Amino acid sequence: MELASLEKQLSFLREIDRLKSVVRQSPLLDKSRKENSAEHSWHLAMYALVLSEYACGPVNANRVIQMLLLHDIVEIDVGDFPIHGGSSAQAQAEQEASAALRLFGLLPQPQGDQFLTLWQEFERAETEDAKFAKALDRFQPLLINIFAGGGTWTESGVSLEQVLSRYGPVIKRGAPLLWTVCEQWVTQHFAPRAAST
Amino acid sequence: MELASLEKQLSFLREIDRLKSVVRQSPLLDKSRKENSAEHSWHLAMYALVLSEYACGPVNANRVIQMLLLHDIVEIDVGDFPIHGGSSAQAQAEQEASAALRLFGLLPQPQGDQFLTLWQEFERAETEDAKFAKALDRFQPLLINIFAGGGTWTESGVSLEQVLSRYGPVIKRGAPLLWTVCEQWVTQHFAPRAAST
Repeated sequence: MELASLEKQLSFLREIDRLKSVVRQSPLLDKSRKENSAEHSWHLAMYALVLSEYACGPVNANRVIQMLLLHDIVEIDVGDFPIHGGSSAQAQAEQEASAALRLFGLLPQPQGDQFLTLWQEFERAETEDAKFAKALDRFQPLLINIFAGGGTWTESGVSLEQVLSRYGPVIKRGAPLLWTVCEQWVTQHFAPRAAST
Repeated sequence: MELASLEKQLSFLREIDRLKSVVRQSPLLDKSRKENSAEHSWHLAMYALVLSEYACGPVNANRVIQMLLLHDIVEIDVGDFPIHGGSSAQAQAEQEASAALRLFGLLPQPQGDQFLTLWQEFERAETEDAKFAKALDRFQPLLINIFAGGGTWTESGVSLEQVLSRYGPVIKRGAPLLWTVCEQWVTQHFAPRAAST
């Protein structure tokens, strides 16, 4: 019985190796290549470990870390939906929900349901933990764009107003102090371009 | 004061982006390329989240996850020391200890010391949490070699006895049931070659 359970767990751990091949829009900071979703998930978990003191409300950093480790696994089936890609939020949510059922369904019960519930909590973004996790998931790519001198904003011709509206509400809701700092960086980043138009 | 602290934390999070460029010996399961240490750390954290019931003693899965998120960060300065590379354990330990001081030293206090202490606990492998974390750090590459039909074992001409001695004690100490399963796989993997010699 225990071995049948272990077999399912190893099938899941084997399947999620594929997250290392899901390529995101954001580059590494040295711009040598695009980031993949597995290493992005590691980096985000480190963000949660380091920055939990900036959460808006009281959070359990370990639950936030668990959420962030899991949050992109659905991309194995549906790929990464870029923030500046203009895809339908409804269609994306439906595809990701099916992927979550299939992937977490590889695990034995009750473990599979526990992971699914945690992933759904992240997606709903109603609890303090989930709001903070979502804020970090916006904060990390924003930082990459700042540090990499524009990154996906330059590539996609994104404006100051679009950056403020696409990143701002989510970061501000989960980590207001981090948003205060972001606002300064973003405004500085767009300042020369704004002045020249 | 808080902003100076945040600045240090962001410097650290920026610096550790480089772990995504540290290439390990093990391939991805689809053999498309070698694994890097950042995505390896994510995968190991997932192993801890999924498999903590197989730990030898009572463990705190969240501490194990934190250890595994941090455990390879020293490789940013010193690179990955392959298990079959024959490097001096003493020289490796000294280089890694210096790297840990520099990298975790980028963080504000007491956070930097907390991370350093957790990393040292992992390295010493004396607590139940650290023994289990070390076991997973051996178990994951062993699984890759089994699933990938040999991987680094074939490349490096590693024998059955070498696999048993290099992986066995560490996995058995931290997760005995996982080692029982490994032993069967490893023996099966080497069986045809053993029979032909």
